Order: sequence, then C-alpha cells, then structure tokens
Amino acid sequence: MLVKTAEQYKDNIRALKRTVFYYGEVINNVVDFPLTSPHVNAAAECYAIAHDPVFEDLAVARSDLCDCTVNRFTYIHKSPEDLVKKVKLLRALGQKTGTCFQRCAGWDALHSLYILTYEIDQRHGTNYHERYLRFLRHVQENDLMVAAGMTDPKGDRSRSPSQQADPDLYLRVIHVKKDGIVIRGAKAHQTGAVNAHEVVVLPTTALREEDRDYAVAFAIPVDTKGLTFIFGRQTNDSRKLESGRIDVGNHHYGMVGGEALIIFDDVFVPSERVFMLGEWDMAGRGVEIFACTHRQNYGGCKVGVMDCLIGATSLIVKYHGLQRVSHIRDKLAEMVHLNETLFGCALASGLQAVKTASGAYMANPLLANTVKLNVTRNIYEIARLAHDIAGGILATLPSEVDFRHPIIGPLIQKYLQTVAGMPVENRVRLLRLIESLTGTASLVEAMHGAGSPQAMKVLMLRQANLDQKEKLAVKLCDLT
Amino acid sequence: MLVKTAEQYKDNIRALKRTVFYYGEVINNVVDFPLTSPHVNAAAECYAIAHDPVFEDLAVARSDLCDCTVNRFTYIHKSPEDLVKKVKLLRALGQKTGTCFQRCAGWDALHSLYILTYEIDQRHGTNYHERYLRFLRHVQENDLMVAAGMTDPKGDRSRSPSQQADPDLYLRVIHVKKDGIVIRGAKAHQTGAVNAHEVVVLPTTALREEDRDYAVAFAIPVDTKGLTFIFGRQTNDSRKLESGRIDVGNHHYGMVGGEALIIFDDVFVPSERVFMLGEWDMAGRGVEIFACTHRQNYGGCKVGVMDCLIGATSLIVKYHGLQRVSHIRDKLAEMVHLNETLFGCALASGLQAVKTASGAYMANPLLANTVKLNVTRNIYEIARLAHDIAGGILATLPSEVDFRHPIIGPLIQKYLQTVAGMPVENRVRLLRLIESLTGTASLVEAMHGAGSPQAMKVLMLRQANLDQKEKLAVKLCDLT
Amino acid sequence: MLVKTAEQYKDNIRALKRTVFYYGEVINNVVDFPLTSPHVNAAAECYAIAHDPVFEDLAVARSDLCDCTVNRFTYIHKSPEDLVKKVKLLRALGQKTGTCFQRCAGWDALHSLYILTYEIDQRHGTNYHERYLRFLRHVQENDLMVAAGMTDPKGDRSRSPSQQADPDLYLRVIHVKKDGIVIRGAKAHQTGAVNAHEVVVLPTTALREEDRDYAVAFAIPVDTKGLTFIFGRQTNDSRKLESGRIDVGNHHYGMVGGEALIIFDDVFVPSERVFMLGEWDMAGRGVEIFACTHRQNYGGCKVGVMDCLIGATSLIVKYHGLQRVSHIRDKLAEMVHLNETLFGCALASGLQAVKTASGAYMANPLLANTVKLNVTRNIYEIARLAHDIAGGILATLPSEVDFRHPIIGPLIQKYLQTVAGMPVENRVRLLRLIESLTGTASLVEAMHGAGSPQAMKVLMLRQANLDQKEKLAVKLCDLT
Amino acid sequence: MLVKTAEQYKDNIRALKRTVFYYGEVINNVVDFPLTSPHVNAAAECYAIAHDPVFEDLAVARSDLCDCTVNRFTYIHKSPEDLVKKVKLLRALGQKTGTCFQRCAGWDALHSLYILTYEIDQRHGTNYHERYLRFLRHVQENDLMVAAGMTDPKGDRSRSPSQQADPDLYLRVIHVKKDGIVIRGAKAHQTGAVNAHEVVVLPTTALREEDRDYAVAFAIPVDTKGLTFIFGRQTNDSRKLESGRIDVGNHHYGMVGGEALIIFDDVFVPSERVFMLGEWDMAGRGVEIFACTHRQNYGGCKVGVMDCLIGATSLIVKYHGLQRVSHIRDKLAEMVHLNETLFGCALASGLQAVKTASGAYMANPLLANTVKLNVTRNIYEIARLAHDIAGGILATLPSEVDFRHPIIGPLIQKYLQTVAGMPVENRVRLLRLIESLTGTASLVEAMHGAGSPQAMKVLMLRQANLDQKEKLAVKLCDLT
Repeated sequence: MLVKTAEQYKDNIRALKRTVFYYGEVINNVVDFPLTSPHVNAAAECYAIAHDPVFEDLAVARSDLCDCTVNRFTYIHKSPEDLVKKVKLLRALGQKTGTCFQRCAGWDALHSLYILTYEIDQRHGTNYHERYLRFLRHVQENDLMVAAGMTDPKGDRSRSPSQQADPDLYLRVIHVKKDGIVIRGAKAHQTGAVNAHEVVVLPTTALREEDRDYAVAFAIPVDTKGLTFIFGRQTNDSRKLESGRIDVGNHHYGMVGGEALIIFDDVFVPSERVFMLGEWDMAGRGVEIFACTHRQNYGGCKVGVMDCLIGATSLIVKYHGLQRVSHIRDKLAEMVHLNETLFGCALASGLQAVKTASGAYMANPLLANTVKLNVTRNIYEIARLAHDIAGGILATLPSEVDFRHPIIGPLIQKYLQTVAGMPVENRVRLLRLIESLTGTASLVEAMHGAGSPQAMKVLMLRQANLDQKEKLAVKLCDLT
Repeated sequence: MLVKTAEQYKDNIRALKRTVFYYGEVINNVVDFPLTSPHVNAAAECYAIAHDPVFEDLAVARSDLCDCTVNRFTYIHKSPEDLVKKVKLLRALGQKTGTCFQRCAGWDALHSLYILTYEIDQRHGTNYHERYLRFLRHVQENDLMVAAGMTDPKGDRSRSPSQQADPDLYLRVIHVKKDGIVIRGAKAHQTGAVNAHEVVVLPTTALREEDRDYAVAFAIPVDTKGLTFIFGRQTNDSRKLESGRIDVGNHHYGMVGGEALIIFDDVFVPSERVFMLGEWDMAGRGVEIFACTHRQNYGGCKVGVMDCLIGATSLIVKYHGLQRVSHIRDKLAEMVHLNETLFGCALASGLQAVKTASGAYMANPLLANTVKLNVTRNIYEIARLAHDIAGGILATLPSEVDFRHPIIGPLIQKYLQTVAGMPVENRVRLLRLIESLTGTASLVEAMHGAGSPQAMKVLMLRQANLDQKEKLAVKLCDLT
Repeated sequence: MLVKTAEQYKDNIRALKRTVFYYGEVINNVVDFPLTSPHVNAAAECYAIAHDPVFEDLAVARSDLCDCTVNRFTYIHKSPEDLVKKVKLLRALGQKTGTCFQRCAGWDALHSLYILTYEIDQRHGTNYHERYLRFLRHVQENDLMVAAGMTDPKGDRSRSPSQQADPDLYLRVIHVKKDGIVIRGAKAHQTGAVNAHEVVVLPTTALREEDRDYAVAFAIPVDTKGLTFIFGRQTNDSRKLESGRIDVGNHHYGMVGGEALIIFDDVFVPSERVFMLGEWDMAGRGVEIFACTHRQNYGGCKVGVMDCLIGATSLIVKYHGLQRVSHIRDKLAEMVHLNETLFGCALASGLQAVKTASGAYMANPLLANTVKLNVTRNIYEIARLAHDIAGGILATLPSEVDFRHPIIGPLIQKYLQTVAGMPVENRVRLLRLIESLTGTASLVEAMHGAGSPQAMKVLMLRQANLDQKEKLAVKLCDLT
Repeated sequence: MLVKTAEQYKDNIRALKRTVFYYGEVINNVVDFPLTSPHVNAAAECYAIAHDPVFEDLAVARSDLCDCTVNRFTYIHKSPEDLVKKVKLLRALGQKTGTCFQRCAGWDALHSLYILTYEIDQRHGTNYHERYLRFLRHVQENDLMVAAGMTDPKGDRSRSPSQQADPDLYLRVIHVKKDGIVIRGAKAHQTGAVNAHEVVVLPTTALREEDRDYAVAFAIPVDTKGLTFIFGRQTNDSRKLESGRIDVGNHHYGMVGGEALIIFDDVFVPSERVFMLGEWDMAGRGVEIFACTHRQNYGGCKVGVMDCLIGATSLIVKYHGLQRVSHIRDKLAEMVHLNETLFGCALASGLQAVKTASGAYMANPLLANTVKLNVTRNIYEIARLAHDIAGGILATLPSEVDFRHPIIGPLIQKYLQTVAGMPVENRVRLLRLIESLTGTASLVEAMHGAGSPQAMKVLMLRQANLDQKEKLAVKLCDLT
C-alpha cells in the first residue's frame, strides 16, 4: 500500500519550496504558519482517513494502473459504486473537518483528464492518454495532492479569451518549444494550491478556433520556476493570529479551502506533462466533464460541513433551554431536510453515472448539476436557520481576550450563563463555531465553487431531454 | 410467467361485483363508466408495462415465493437495487399516464405487511408471517391489484382512536369470532379502490393500550359483503361526461388516482386473512414502514407526471414563439431542476435502503421523508412555473363545444392562432393538458398523499441522528 | 347622488342585448343564467357597497366633472389618499365576494385614458382629452360599469403586431371614415365583459411606426353591432348547473371574474368615442399607466379574497380540533404575513403616488409592480398552506348529491364527523369554499392578471434608479 | 433650533467619560479609536442630516414640549405622517451610511415610554408621564442620543426572570431607596451604547406577579457609576486596525451598529429618572409598543443599506461587462423587488398607524411585524443574489497590502483587470464593500434586531383578527 500518512504529507509540504505571499509577506512554511496551517490540517485528514479502518471501504481503492492500493483521492472511478463512495467519503471528511479539505478538486481534474485525453486521442489521433497515464501512475504511487487549475481571471466577461485587451487574462501558451511549452496567465480561487504537490491545469471554458492558444492542459510541480501563489483573505482571517483560539471558530481546520491566486509567469512545462495542446474543439468537453465530476461533490463535502453546523445548532438549543420548543424543532428538521436533499441528489448522481469511452464513469450530468444548484440555495438557507436559532449573540459576542480578562471576564461569564450547569465557555465556543461555519467565505464557496448557478441552468437544460418530454405530452393529448 | 395483460385485468374488474357510488348513483361497471374508466386505464398500464420488453428489467421480477416471474407490483424488495428499480418503474408509468396509476399504495401495503408480520411474530410469538405469505403468494400468482387501506377518517384530531365521540371514526374490530373477526369503520382517500381486486388494511397511527381494538391488519376481496365504495369528486370531473374529450385534458388517464371512501359496515374477515390483531405496540412500527416505503415513490411517479408537464410546457413555448426568450428558458430549467431533485432523493433512498429482520429492504427513512417533503413544495412550484409560462389563456379558454361551433368556432380558431402553421387545436389540447396536470386535486395529492408535511418533519427529526452531529461539533470546537 | 343600486344595475344588464356564447349556446340573460349569475352578483356588490354607510368614505366620491357624488369606480384619483382608498375599497369588496368583482379593470382604463388623452394632446396637439371628458361624464352620471379591453390575442409572441401572419391578431383600425372608424380584432381574458355597460379599448403593447394602425383607443356600448362575447371555461364551472349549491364553493359570487373573449368583427366606432388614433409613440405610455394603475389593485382585491381563505382555513382548523397545534398556528401566521405583505405594498404604492400632467395621480410605479410580483408568488404559497392545513379530504370529498343520498348520505355524515357537535355539513361547505378559493383559475388570475411576472421585472428595473444607487456605493467606498 | 451638529455631537461624546472595554483594553476615546470611530461617524450622520436643507422635512420637527424645532430622533410621532417620515428618514440615512446609524432604537424607547408612562398612570394612578416629559424635554433640548436598553441576557430560555438560577440574568431592582432605586443586571446587544449620551431601560418581556422586581424602566447618563460597556466583536473587525482602508469595506461607517453588552453593577437611579417600578402587568404592553415601533424601522434603514448593496452590485456588473446579460438583469430586478417590498410594508405601517391614549401614534402592529418578518428573509436573499452576481472573487480576493506590494501588486493588478479602462482598484473596493454589506453580522442583525422571527409570528397571529376573517367565510358558504 502506497498511501501516505498525514505526517508524511505534512513533511512533504514543509520540504517543498514554493513562493507563497500573504498579507505582504513570503510564507516559507505553510504547514506551520498560523494562517495556512488549519488548511493544511484539513488536507492532511484526506491522508489520515486512508489509515482509519472504519473508512477503509471508502478511503482507499485498488488501482489497476499501479497494481496497488491507493488513496481514493488519486483513483479513477470505474463504476457507479465508485462515484457513490466518493460522495460518502467527502461527507465523512466534511464531518471531520467542518470545512473544505481541498483534495477533491485536484482529484476531479485527474479524473477529467483521464476521460478527456482518451477522447482527444480518439478524435485527433494524438497520444495524450498514454502520456497521461504515466503521470497519473506517478501521482498514485507517491500519493500526491493535486491542485486543480480551472478558473481563469476572465477579464471582461463579455469577451472571449482572444478578444481580451490583455491576452493573458486567460491562461495561454506563449511559446511551443521542442521539449515543452511556455505558459503565461493565472488561475484564480485555487483551493489547496499552497499545500498541494502538483498543479493540474485545464481550460476554463469552451473555445473557438481563434482561441487555440488557450486550449492547453498540463501538470507541474508547485515548485516549478515562475509560479507565484497569492493567498486570499478570508472572513475573520486575522483572528488566527490572535493569542486565543476560540474566536476562530473552526480553529483546527479553518473556514473554507485556503484559496490562492496562482500566477504563471512564463512557466516552462516539459512535453511529457502536456495533455492537450491546441485542440480547441475539445475544451468545452473538458469543462463539461470537470463540471459534472466536481459539482456532484458538493452534495458530499458540504453536507458533512452542514452536519457539523446542525450539530452545533442542536447543541446551542440545549444550552439555551429550548429543546422542547416546537418552532425550534421544526427549524432543526428543516435544516436536516435541506441537507439530506443535497446528499440524496449527489448519491443519485453517482448511482446514475455514465460510462465514458475511456472506461471511466462520469457523475450523471443532470443530477450533478441539480446537486450544485441546490447547494447554491440550501446552504444559505441552512445558515439562515442556524442564525435564527442561535440568536443575536452570534453577532455581538465579546472577544476571547475579554472573556479571559481579570475584570470583565467574570462579568461576561456571569451574564452569558444560560441553563444552569452548562459551561459558558462551551456556549461561546459553539457560537464561534456557528459563526465560522456560516461565514461569508463559506457561503460564497457554496455559491461559486464548481461554477456559478447560471452555469448549472445552462447545462441542465442541455441535459434535460426536452424533446422526449414533449413526446410524452404529444401522446397524452393526442396531438396530430 | 403469471403476469396478466391489461385486458385480462380489465376483464377481471368488469366481472368483480362491488358497491360503488358516485354522484348519487350505483356504478356497476367502473371499467367503462366515463368517470372511472380513465383511472382504470391508468391502472391497466401497470399490467401492460409488464409485457413491454423495453421495461422488462423494471416491470417484472422473479419471486422465490411462487418460484415464478411476477409483476413487480406484487414483488417484495430484497435489495437496494429493487428499491431503485421501483422508483424508475414508477417514473416510467408516470410518464406514460401523466397521473396516479394507483397500484403502488397496495404494493407498499403488501411490502409493509411482509416486514411487519415478521416483526410481530418475533416480538409476540405469533404466526402471522406464514399466514401472510400464503396470501402474498395468492396475490403474486393471480397478479392481483391491491388497494391500501391506510387512512382512517380520524374525527377530532386532538383525540386518540378510543377517545372519539363515535368509536368508529377509526376502523376497529367489533367482534372476535372463532373463525374470524368483524370490522367496522372506514378508510378514506383510497387510491384505486374501486378498481382493485383486494383491499389490504393497516392501522393509520401509533396506538396505546386502550386502543387495542384498533390494532388490526387484514386483507379482503373488494366484493366482500358490507363494503361500500364512495367515489370522490375531482377537479373538473364532470367534463368527462361531456361530448368532447379535449377539455378533460388528460382524458385517457384522468387527473389523480380516483380516490374513494371505503366503508366497512360490519365486515367479516376470516382468520387466514388477519395479519395483526390487538398487537397495539406494533401499530406505530407498521405506520413507519408503510410511510417510508410509500413516501419514496413520490420521487418516481410524480417526477414522471411532471415530465409530462414540462414537456407540455416546453411545447406550448414553441407554439407561442418564445423558445429563445431567456427568462422562459430559465424557468424551464428551474422546472427540470425541481423535478430532478425529487428523483435524485428517491433513487438515493433506494440506494441507501435498510435491511429489516424479515430480509426485505425498506427505503431509507431519512431520505424517503426528504423526498416527500420536497414533493409537497416542488410540485406546487413546478405548477406555478407552468402557469407562468403557459399564460392567462389557461384560465379563460372557451370550451371544446364552442371551439367546434359553426359560428364562433372559426372565430376562436382565428384568434387563438399563434405561430404560423402550428395547429390551433393542438395549442388548445396542450393548454387543457397543462390545466389538468396542475389541477387542484393533483396538487393536493402531492401535498397529502403518503402523509402531510408535518408527518415528514417528525419522522425526519427522529431519524436525523442529532446526537452524532452534536459530537462532530463538540470535537471541532473542543468542548469539555 | 347618481349612484345606482345593485338592483338597478342588474335591471340594466338584463335589458342590454348583447351576443354572449357559452358552451355552444347563446346566453340571452347573463343576470339569471346560472353560469354567469354569480359573476353578476359579484359585480353588483360594487354598486351595493356605495349605499352602505359603513363604506361611505371609500365607496363614493365627489366628482368635479359632473359636480356630484359618484360611485368611486367611475372617479378619477386626484391625490395619494384616493389611491389608498382604492386599495381599501378593493379589499373590502374582496372580503365580501371572495372573488373578482370585475369593475376595477374598467375603472383603471377610465383613469388611464384620463391621463393618456391629456398627454397625447400635449405632444400631438390633438383634442382627445376634452372629448374623453364628455364620455367620462356620461359614465359617471349613469354609473356605468366599464370593461377594459387591454389584452390582444398576440399570436406569435416573437413578432410585433404588424408582423403577424394574420394582421388581426392585434386589434386594429381597418377603415377611417368621416364620422368614425372601423375596428377588427379581439380582446382576450376580458373580466366582467359580459355584464358591463361599455367596453373601453386601449393598445396592449408599445408600438413602432409600422404598427400605426394598432394605435387606437375608444369606448363603445356592449350592444354595438359586430361585438361577440365568448365566455371562457372556469375550473369546475359545470358544478353551477348541478342541483345542489355546496360543491360550487363560492356559489354566490363564483370563482374569478368571468372572463370572456371579445371579438370585434368590423365594429364601427363614432368619432366622439375615439380617444387615440395613430399616435403609436404614445401606446407604450398608455400601457405603462394602465399597468401601474391596475397592478396596485391586486394588493387590495386579492388580499380581501385571501382574508376569506384564511378565515375558512382558520375555521376548518377548529372543525378538525387542531387550533392548539403549534405548526398549524405557525402556518396560519404565515398566511396572514404573506397576505399583509401584499396589502402593505399596495397601500404604499398609493401613498407614494405620482402626479401626472393631467392632474390625476398614478400609483407609484415601482411599488405597484412590487405588489403584483409578490401576488404572483404569495397567492400560490397561501393556497399551498391552505391545502396543507385543510388536509387530503379537499381532493376526495364526495359530491353533495351523495351527501344527501338516502343510503350513503348518513354513512358519509357519520364518517366525516370531526369535533363532536360541529355540523358535518359546515365542514363540507368550508372545504368546498377552500377548494373554490384556491382553484386553478384563481391562481392563474393571480399570476397573469394585470400582466405576467416578467412584465413587472422589466418595468421594475426601469424604475429602480440604479444610477442613483450606484452613486451611493461610489461614495461609500471612495471610488475615483 | 436646538439641533446639534455632527461635530458638536462628537465633541460631546469625546468629553463623556464612560468605561468601555474592547479586546481586553479600556477605550477612553470611542470617537477616535479605529474600531469604534466608524460607528460614531454613522451616528453623527443623524446629527448632520438635520442641517441638510434637502432633508429638512424629514430630519427635524417642531416639538410642542419644548416649543422648538428638534432633531426628529428626539421627537414623538403625533400622526401617521410622522411615522411615514420616520421610514423615509431612516432609508435616507441607510443610503448615506450603508450601515446601522444606531439612533433609532433609543428614539423608539423614548417614544414607547411616552405611550407607556401615560398608560401606566391611567391604570395605576401613578405620575410617571409628567416625570417622563421632564426627561424627554431634557433630551430634546440637548439633542441627546439615547441607547435603548431592551434585551436582557435571558439565561435559561425555558424559565421566567424570577426562576433563573442567577436572578440577575434579567435586569432588576435590588433596592428601593428613598430617593431612587438600585439596579443590577445587564442589557445585551446594545446598539450605539458606547457613543450615546443616555441609556433608557425597559423590561424585555411580559412579566408575572412574581417577577415584580423586573418591572422597571428608567434613564441614566452613560457615565453613571457602576455602568460597564463591553464592545462586541464584529465580522472582520480587526481589519479596521490595519494600515489600509480598503479591506474594511464600508470603512467610513462600519458594519452594523457597534453593539455592546452593558453591565449594571448596582447602579443608582434617582427617582426622577424612574418611569416604571413594579407595575409588572404593564411590562408586556411596553414590549409590544417598543416592538411595533422598532420593527417598522427595518423597512427604512435596511432598505437604505440594501440600496447601497444594489448599487455596488449594479456597478460590479459593469466592471465585469455583464450589464446586458439577461439572468443578471433579472437578479438585479429581484434584489430591487425584495427591497421595495420591505419599504412598502414599512410605509404602510406608518400610514395605518394607530392612535394611543397618550395621543402619540404607534406603527400599525400587524404591518410592522410583517415588515420585520420579511426583513429576516429578504435581506439574506438579497445578500445571496449579490454574492451570485459578484462572483467567487468575493471570497478569495488578496489583501490590500498585497495589492500595494511592490512585487505582487502589479501582478494582482494585471490579473484582476476586467473591462478595459475600468480601474482595478475600484473593482476591489466594490468587492470589499459588498463583502462588508453582506457580512455575517449584517445578516444576523437583520435576523434578530428588534426581535427574532418567532416573536413576529406570535404578535401577528394576535393581531390578525382571525375571528373577523372566519365570519367572512361563514357568510360566503352560508354556515349555520
């Protein structure tokens, strides 16, 4: 078994040199730097779980490619069951971490390239798939964490890549050399980018012939020359730098996925790492595969995170002495309902998975889009209900420093007491956790991660098979 | 293969004598009487589909009990796959009929008694299961359509069965004789009751010791002495008696399931048909099994019906020349989204089915309730969107008689013309179909069939495992 | 005081000869014909209320034009207070009738032409306003009910009036004669058309120069030669022809407004009744005035109708013994909330009314559109909640004939009993009333009456003053 | 005119000594301390606006009491028009500040005590009203900002004040002395408390006889001995301490109202400042008056804040080049719609205001609760739509420090460019403003400010006059 432990993973990441900026400084060690360490902890759980016998069925799998047991996060789905297991694995990790654990986007990029390179070869007579399998085997054997470089900055949204005032606003090939290519551009919102081993890049949109230079897919190690990572701000991020831990809320694992802007400043990619080059007609297909694969996930990971939120809310109800109040119980049931709706659709999108030419299975496109569109609504509504139940204190709670202060600490303790015998500090911790789980960045991630709502609607209509539905109506009312 | 054809089924039902009242008259032949015949047609499709090779995998199954291939509507689910197939079969029939085809409630009652009799025997040392298997085998071998007698009239909802002013407001045993029992009471909203072969009765609610007489389950043929069926009114029901067919909308299959009130006026049930007698402590379990089994279905049948509605709406868009209008496309996508959400949850509730002591599988309780709670909302919203798209003409369309009238007919034809070349009559047929698919009775069925929304919330909270979710929160924020 | 009584109104309508078709027959007397009489009753309440001292402040007003007290339904709004009173009057009538009382659309057409003719004269130097005032005075002095001819059949929605395959799909002038004009076309969904005195016609959409023939406004008596009225079908309409009254639900006043298709088969309109002729550039303004004026109303009339529905639902709760159940109380509160939201916006749209050049006030456009957009959602949701509370019996209740039947009547009585002492017949009447108040036609009227949802969004964005809002943001974040 | 300027107000507040804690430190000067100064700026706009001739009609009023023109924030509403003007004034200030400007809660407390003291005197023969008028005159003549002490910590929510383990969990009288009373307890979530002149305290809930000690109302200056203010944390609060201003978003005025926990540690209140003492039966009435008065406001202030958000979102659309995209326009229209719904209901609640025995008017209770219940939903939905439109960058934007960094600054500038010619820094500022306007604390304030949703539902049902609605139904369906 080639599965790394969490500690091995962290040691790897500590050792890998890359250029990360945050708040004007270079972060040399993302594993131990307070602002990034929670995210590394979350990603590390994707390694730890593979050694937990409870999750054996979900967290590892047998790979034909390297003929060994691999971490499922590097495995290619070969059946609907695999895609069902993916959802369950993601929910379990969401429950453990209460946040984005970052490894799924790269996994989905790996999976998408498996299907896409096969299909490019079919249409264009190229040889990407074989080349790709060598890379994939390397990933599996070394249990590498991969960041998915999907989203370009996109500039003026009314113009295509080649129409932009600055041609670099979509990532592109600027030189083709004998032994590789040179890349310029950026990828935005890159989850887990600062603590991955590799970056895998795919086009972000369907392309036309004039956008040929933008049709490129490849993989490079994060310490490749010319790569710069700029770590984004998150809601309440600087609380991680404070003396106490409570105000951070989910202090072990952080809020959301630690997104970064990756800049490719004329980066050389050797030929054996290039998996698409100029096949502009296949870019849309690549986006579609990745979108369906990735959108399914949100009915796993987010559901796990919401399980934590529902749990925290259910507990705060007990701290407030409200567990028999009927409208409170109704709202808890509603939170569960909204959450299970997401899970149900995600499982179904695995169950109804579609076999591709490559042999790999793709999550059912219609249902995968259904999952994600529900996520863009239900997560906000679950958060709203959590706010409703938790009370106004959520927004006016004094800081941990005040809570520990010799003069006002005891006063705060006195007046934040609720049900007799329930520790006030626990109540504060729960409120901070709820605050963290429903923070702006968490909501925005639910909205835009894996694509914005309109993208789902467009794909959904394409998949809806309206023609067949129209025929049902024709028959029922005897149209001539 | 013991599977009946649609014609055999209709011949059976024509031959069976029972007492059906509708609009003050006795209906001797429900197969050919215009008000009931569409419902019989819908039920008959459950027989026809079993002979359609396209649906072979879904519509028939091999039964161990009679060692033969049976119509799936008499089959006991022995795996999650079976419960997934159920949902797909129901969607297919919803697509064919655009309405309730009525056979699923009885199927679910059969399934529930399979599990329940086994569990009663386990707890009470009785011998119901074996007795029940004999009955079930009879059903399978004769491919009988069974109506499920679940819902009692319930009288004063703030009182339990034995507290009612009139003790008959819940169905009960009034005598226990040597060779059987005598039953008095009623079952309301009985889908398919007037065109089934048998009625299977179960308690409608959890019971306490003083309600012991209400703890009874049994099966009887519909022509048993003392049974009276009163067929309820439906939206626009009398249009079925008019000369034309168009105004009915779904004139082949009708709107909703042809519900009846069944009155048991001191009906004798022989002992071999009694499957519960006095085991009041198991009544709640019976309700739970039936509820979960039946609630899953709505993510199949209703989804199929909504496929017809979406198809009709998509077509009317073309008749109106609106197919490129962006808000219209958005609303069609939304209809699809809401519908697939139901389907996804229903499939998942099959996939995550739970094995019972009897060996049979039960749809996942949490997800089955999620399905049905979504149905009570999404169907209304889909109908609202269909109304939005179809336009005000939906409510002001002249009658078919006017449409065919020598003087005003041509005027109506002239002014209802839309896109050139699209037949006006087709437009009218589509509008009437949409009217029929979104009629009050259809909506109310989505709301209350298989239980009212609050029933889902109560079960959902019980299944939500809040304790485990609370532990996740405890761990994340280090509660002591 | 020139205000007619309800009886005088009915006598008028009985006496007026016009050509009405319904279900293939000519209806000579709409006042007493069972299918139309409820609608006449509802309209008659607009006369009766003017003699009720309780409503004196709302139902009559002093007109400068005829220097007398007139029924407010013929009065021109001269202040915000007038537009507030309109909303209150409409709510009162909605409460009395539980349906559309039809007179407001014509009132709004009268009001719109008052403003529009003034503005056409201003721009085109015409003399319509003076001509119009003579007509208006005639209406006021004779307390005439006016039907508003707004909505054309519209044919292919992707084409403008003059682009249609059949040029008559929008109503148009086919000849201009010395003493008048000849009109061909139709107006659809005409509320109250078969029991009004006059029809006032306006263009249905903004026009371009090539649509000049469609720019026409005029008024004619309903017995004008060439007019044909075709009465549309409504949900459960034929129940009005049955022996009993109960199954109709709102049997005094009917469901919705008795809409008709009016066909103008080369109708001559004398010059003194023509209020726009060829001024295509003002058609859009006319639509805007009418839309704002009419959309406000739905926060009055529909709110009154929903008051009846809330009342019926609240009573049925008592019949079922559920008045202390927390989720039921919550749903009743929600129904009230959704309803008062409509009322609040309608009042505000009066309070914030805008003075026009003519001196008359127009309901605030932004708020009037807000009202109607909320109506297209809240009415459906209120209906859904009523269905939730009322129970499945709403869709399976036997007919009144069965209820009165010597054999099964007593059985139905026995088994529909709920709380002891509450008459079963009352329960049945309430359920039928709820069915009628939430019928398809009622819902569709809420959706499309006064314009479909998208029409609101378009107008709303035009009125939203986004520029000024952008300036607020510019200032707050110091944009340069 | 006795109206202070913004500068005079700030000078006052600077001079007033009080004990404020934040993050473990004593804040001596809240006017200039970076974490509190934005809130002071927002409050100061309530003074500045009174000198702006544009707002003269809204921002000042003539007081009979002191026979002079006063800032409207100290004025008692004597007509429906006053309560309409209140809403408009609040919207104007919301537009100016994009946040809570804090002065309305104290204003509402002043108004509530005006009505309440009068009614207590009527029932109990006391003399509070006259005493109160002296205090009110002092407030008006000195244009004092008043903080409203309404919400007690409440401890175990299942217990009444006197049943709490610690009796201080509701604020109470611990001694009655000859010349005054001694108070112990706390008031939580006190908007504007650290920059007000006075604190006015009222009971937070209806009381029973055993809670008599909790029935107390009074006013004291903020520098009274025994008062401690603990300033709560807000979303992203520490960004205010950073070198740049951009990341704060609304950096002039802050997010939300700067809530504090006020602790009353045996505070002496002289008799002339006591306005209720032991009249437990009137506590509920006080809560009701305050609730209705305060809930109306949210349809003013929040609407103004959302105007800023809509403006920022509309601008960001232009920066992204999306202004012609149909789904984007639809979402902007929806944001406007949801916002105007709030405004409409608030205006109506003024228009339909109720005259009290004291002569002052109270916002219409039913409509005021409708306003606030809509706020608890619509604000979240508007925020969700803003997130949808603004894009994922909202959650991953690098910090201002990075933006200004010599190495990565230019890279960020390059890759965040959108429509050519639109300054990137403006885009960043707008995104930070949107982030700030939709931050957790803003949402929670919309949810819980002026009471949590369930409180509205309870009051709404009490005000709904269901009896009268039931009578409408009785009449329509002829119940006997």
